Amino acid sequence: MRKVAILGVGQTAVGEHWDKSLREIGGEAAFAALQDAGMERADCLYVGNMLSPLVDGQNQLGAFLADWIGAWHQEATKLEAACGSGAAAFRAGLMAVASGEVDSALVVGVEKMTDKAGHDVTAALATAADADYEVEQGVSFVGLNALIMKRYMHEFGWKHGDFAAFSINAHANAVHNPFARLRETISPERFETSAMIATPINLLDASPIGDGAAAAILVPADRVTSGPGRPRVIVTASASATDTIAVHSRRDPMFLAAAAQSAKQCYDMAGVGPPDVDLFELHDAFSIMSALSLEACGFADRGQGVRLGLDGEISITGRVPICTRGGLKARGHPVGATGMYQIVEIVQQLRGECGETQVKSASIGMAQNIGGSGATVLTHIIKAEKRDLHKRGYVRRARNTGLAP
Amino acid sequence: MRKVAILGVGQTAVGEHWDKSLREIGGEAAFAALQDAGMERADCLYVGNMLSPLVDGQNQLGAFLADWIGAWHQEATKLEAACGSGAAAFRAGLMAVASGEVDSALVVGVEKMTDKAGHDVTAALATAADADYEVEQGVSFVGLNALIMKRYMHEFGWKHGDFAAFSINAHANAVHNPFARLRETISPERFETSAMIATPINLLDASPIGDGAAAAILVPADRVTSGPGRPRVIVTASASATDTIAVHSRRDPMFLAAAAQSAKQCYDMAGVGPPDVDLFELHDAFSIMSALSLEACGFADRGQGVRLGLDGEISITGRVPICTRGGLKARGHPVGATGMYQIVEIVQQLRGECGETQVKSASIGMAQNIGGSGATVLTHIIKAEKRDLHKRGYVRRARNTGLAP
Repeated sequence: MRKVAILGVGQTAVGEHWDKSLREIGGEAAFAALQDAGMERADCLYVGNMLSPLVDGQNQLGAFLADWIGAWHQEATKLEAACGSGAAAFRAGLMAVASGEVDSALVVGVEKMTDKAGHDVTAALATAADADYEVEQGVSFVGLNALIMKRYMHEFGWKHGDFAAFSINAHANAVHNPFARLRETISPERFETSAMIATPINLLDASPIGDGAAAAILVPADRVTSGPGRPRVIVTASASATDTIAVHSRRDPMFLAAAAQSAKQCYDMAGVGPPDVDLFELHDAFSIMSALSLEACGFADRGQGVRLGLDGEISITGRVPICTRGGLKARGHPVGATGMYQIVEIVQQLRGECGETQVKSASIGMAQNIGGSGATVLTHIIKAEKRDLHKRGYVRRARNTGLAP
Repeated sequence: MRKVAILGVGQTAVGEHWDKSLREIGGEAAFAALQDAGMERADCLYVGNMLSPLVDGQNQLGAFLADWIGAWHQEATKLEAACGSGAAAFRAGLMAVASGEVDSALVVGVEKMTDKAGHDVTAALATAADADYEVEQGVSFVGLNALIMKRYMHEFGWKHGDFAAFSINAHANAVHNPFARLRETISPERFETSAMIATPINLLDASPIGDGAAAAILVPADRVTSGPGRPRVIVTASASATDTIAVHSRRDPMFLAAAAQSAKQCYDMAGVGPPDVDLFELHDAFSIMSALSLEACGFADRGQGVRLGLDGEISITGRVPICTRGGLKARGHPVGATGMYQIVEIVQQLRGECGETQVKSASIGMAQNIGGSGATVLTHIIKAEKRDLHKRGYVRRARNTGLAP
């Protein structure tokens, strides 16, 4: 298969976009990515979305979005893997270009969630769990994560406050991301005293939903060269794995087996290991998920993911910077779009466009997008091929990779 | 890219399976395909489904079904393109194998629609149309097709009774298909006098919904050889195209532009033309769609698709046999599964397993699966490489390609 490069990226701010429809949000990110790539159109369109049938009454988002952006008659389709939908679409676009079937692919992750009242969205999100054997018992999605977190705290002896570092880090980074939803720092005190949602998960353990879209343009790597201020960004590894849909079916509900498997496949494929990863955009839908992802991907021993937060290793200057643009926690979690936000943010880091939260000399980024409570996991490793740009002073200021805000 | 063969197929009967859940139906077809291919598992799973979030409260059907069939930790994802979801999943599986990313793919189209009352399913199906600009006006999916049919009759001077041949042919063929939902012949009189749904579409113009699943195993062609009674079945062409999501946005609502485009791409790819196609499994969700598909794919001039029915050219012994196992009209239309039923039925024809409705010496079959009112169209051409099996008397009786009925 051919090597594939990410030529352009785009995104909308995550928020409550009452003035913009599903298609407008998706189109905005798509056009931003096309503009960033210097292209008028791509050969095909892959859309990642989870909730539009339920929340927007709209299916068939491939044709729907192709129509809106004027990509008439083009191949277009939608992939859905719950909150892993964005990366699922990215992987489909990657395979289409890598196989030679097309010469360019536009991938858009899009979600419009805030036009419905809270209850509906909670029910809609629960469709990521097992309808017959989990949801039927009355458990919501946050409820499932609460059960996992409670068990983890019991098993490994952590207190709730030990998880604060994950949220504090995410919020601190989001302040510098104009596309993030929650651009404010939080203190350990505020973390500990925020409203309880499902014990032990409180408001600041959980990521906020939102409307948003993020997009990327994929092309064969041999058609792209590194330029001043613009390294060639290559997808060096892609893997997808699954676990049981229901948490109760797992041998060990505190181990993200599919995350471990897809990460291992990616490490093998890219010929790298955890120490080589300069930043890791992980799926921090809840603070417990940050700990579990770090453990599954080899950055911490079992039960010790929390320590990376306590030791400051997850900050921009730490051993494994995570949520460098705010993560799900503070950039926001427009579920089907999240996987694409992670990709866009890694590209921004590899290009050196992140200002205050720039990871110094970042050349390898890993993204991990999770559907359900670990049932579908997609991991990607992305690498910048640069000519020592920072040393030459090429990378001076952030590029605008979106139309908004 | 590598040539890809269909090694095994499986299906469940289409019907109201009150005793079987979504996962049971999908699993049944998956196991039937694996058994038919003589395999215990494939490398990955692609699922086509449209309505499960809305009708079954279940998303993430990739991991969901992989879990149920015991394909733990395997890559699995879902594709959705309204009623074109089945073929969208097939094309994704095809690309995964053709690219070399995997060595085998299981593709399952599955839909469980009958657990909800009629009104809910009508609303759910309307998500295939444009929520903002079509559905918002109160138009249902059958309503959109009725507008197209009425205009077609006016424009080209056909009477409602002229469409009878499509339904009569589909029902006649379904009688011999043990997996079909409506196994009874209908008369021209009954066609004309059946209950009106949305003028001019009456009950017998419309395909019935249903629960059902159909599946196929894809492998590299070079790992398969033709054997006695079992030709090597190759996918020689695959193409996907889109049109505007709303019917009113089209220059000509009576021309299926995406069907024409994807068919043309397939003809070019396979090096064949309409006269070479031995059977055509088209998307007869409504009788008008049969006429439009035949025209778009070059089997009839504009406005003359109906004549093929009147002249008997669509029957098993005609120039272009369609709906050879009953089509959507009589086999039934479990929406996200339909595209895979078409593939399974073509494989059965190419293997010579269709008894009374066997198309003699069939070696090239074309399948066309349509999402929405022509917004997403996927076309595939499938070819049998046989060693004159019929002459040698190898093909004597139908193989069982499913566990039920």
